[in-house]
Amino acid sequence: MTDHIPVIAIHGGAGTINRASLDTAAEARYHAALHDIVSAAQAMLLQGASALDACGKAVELLEDCPLFNAGHGAVFTDQETHELDAAVMNGSDLRAGAVAGVSRIRHPVHAARAVMDDGAHVLLGGAGAEAFAFQRGLEAVDPSFFSTDFRRQQLLRAREQHRVALDHDGSPLAEDKKFGTVGAVALDLHGHLAAATSTGGMTNKRVGRIGDTPLIGAGTYADDRGAAVSCTGSGEMFIRIAAAYDITARMRHAGQSLQQAAEAVVMESLPAIGGSGGLIAVDRAGNLSLCFNTEGMYRAHARGGELPQTAIFR
Amino acid sequence: MTDHIPVIAIHGGAGTINRASLDTAAEARYHAALHDIVSAAQAMLLQGASALDACGKAVELLEDCPLFNAGHGAVFTDQETHELDAAVMNGSDLRAGAVAGVSRIRHPVHAARAVMDDGAHVLLGGAGAEAFAFQRGLEAVDPSFFSTDFRRQQLLRAREQHRVALDHDGSPLAEDKKFGTVGAVALDLHGHLAAATSTGGMTNKRVGRIGDTPLIGAGTYADDRGAAVSCTGSGEMFIRIAAAYDITARMRHAGQSLQQAAEAVVMESLPAIGGSGGLIAVDRAGNLSLCFNTEGMYRAHARGGELPQTAIFR
Repeated sequence: MTDHIPVIAIHGGAGTINRASLDTAAEARYHAALHDIVSAAQAMLLQGASALDACGKAVELLEDCPLFNAGHGAVFTDQETHELDAAVMNGSDLRAGAVAGVSRIRHPVHAARAVMDDGAHVLLGGAGAEAFAFQRGLEAVDPSFFSTDFRRQQLLRAREQHRVALDHDGSPLAEDKKFGTVGAVALDLHGHLAAATSTGGMTNKRVGRIGDTPLIGAGTYADDRGAAVSCTGSGEMFIRIAAAYDITARMRHAGQSLQQAAEAVVMESLPAIGGSGGLIAVDRAGNLSLCFNTEGMYRAHARGGELPQTAIFR
Repeated sequence: MTDHIPVIAIHGGAGTINRASLDTAAEARYHAALHDIVSAAQAMLLQGASALDACGKAVELLEDCPLFNAGHGAVFTDQETHELDAAVMNGSDLRAGAVAGVSRIRHPVHAARAVMDDGAHVLLGGAGAEAFAFQRGLEAVDPSFFSTDFRRQQLLRAREQHRVALDHDGSPLAEDKKFGTVGAVALDLHGHLAAATSTGGMTNKRVGRIGDTPLIGAGTYADDRGAAVSCTGSGEMFIRIAAAYDITARMRHAGQSLQQAAEAVVMESLPAIGGSGGLIAVDRAGNLSLCFNTEGMYRAHARGGELPQTAIFR
């Protein structure tokens, strides 16, 4: 079997352009962060790392970066707490793992991977998920580790406006209207696909709310026979149309190309029920789709050893 | 528009035949319970009730019946607690609601319906889900309300055998090997579909484990353009193949019939990853599939005003 040319793509959320504060310095910070993170995952893939490991590393770095709503820098719930969700899926054997509603695990994406590696269950929630992760030796942090002043201000604004805000401001995409999720999809040298997604959810969300991110088939999916997909957007709508899985379903059942399938989901199925956002997807042939129905999506990709490309707006 | 002939189907879990204790009196109790519950939902549908309401009522009655692993009579986790999950979905507009890991709401299926009716979120977990349900006036119970001696014995047996047991014994399907979930799917007079599912999960399961039941697209799905589906089985495998949604995907994307789609999922996709169990499904033409790859599935259905039919084995 010949080697495949590895492909990596990452996203840091989708949303509307922040016309109030077009700030080239802020924009440059986002481009730089996306570039560094996608480059790290690209280097791993070129050295033969699995798509699963590369996606886990990319999402770990996105979780650590306070610019993005996942891990450190996550948004607050309506009770001023954090509830983080993450998922991973391996395309060669459909193994998957996810955690929901955790607040003491430094890297939720690694907890999702541990659930997958353990194999007994796919999705663990809350304290049960944390107990499992700590048994497996994952790094514990105080919930305040995830808090930033920026996110606290965002919660206060959301409360004043009596609404659920979708994510961060001063940044290129309006943080109060952004869907804050991070994710990665990859094709490795060995021809296998994987996907990983992580989020802090929506600012001012109801405690206990679980969005699409940790739900296999909704916000995250990977199948070597179809595509690896990571979504970001109005999570409830992604759940109701099984958005991530539907890419693979359209490719396998209807013979659609990756691009056709991604456009059908993002430009037709989602808007039909009022959903907005986007997704990144890669298939085994190395086709890539970075598709969104919002004004922008923080995104980056790299193919083989080529220079990574980063983008924010259309 | 002409009226549709209403159809209702329910299930009470799937599993292997209990050869150790073929007990005709126990068998008769299951047939009687299934008959009474499907008849109650059938009567509602004939009077013009929505598929959504009929499914909610059927699952409420299944939750109240201690023979089945949902609501009163739910199994125990490895911490000797109960964690109940439920979901509902409405086929005409793809609205959905679900709760996961609740232990103080008498009827989890009604909490799922309340989440759907509220509309802000699709899935709420744990204490957040309970707080929401009680704000909406749902009946609260002490967690001990769900406990039965029978289930406690089952947990002790599972612990002795160091394994996760799938559900209850003395009953027609071996309770220690049964997938205990209950569910309903319906087509109403108005031509709309709905599905509802509820479960106590697996005996001796890890605290925090969320199975396929409350995951829209995995254990529960309804789309008037495809089918209403409620699953029961090794939940993790149903999650990994987006089992419930895949019925609709195969019908819409590949032009398969309901029966073809159900058999592909239950007899091919599931066994391919070691999954076992079954599902009930109905489409808008009134086609019905009660499909399982185990030795038996507690099930019943009724079409129009015809006498309901109940069955346990193949």
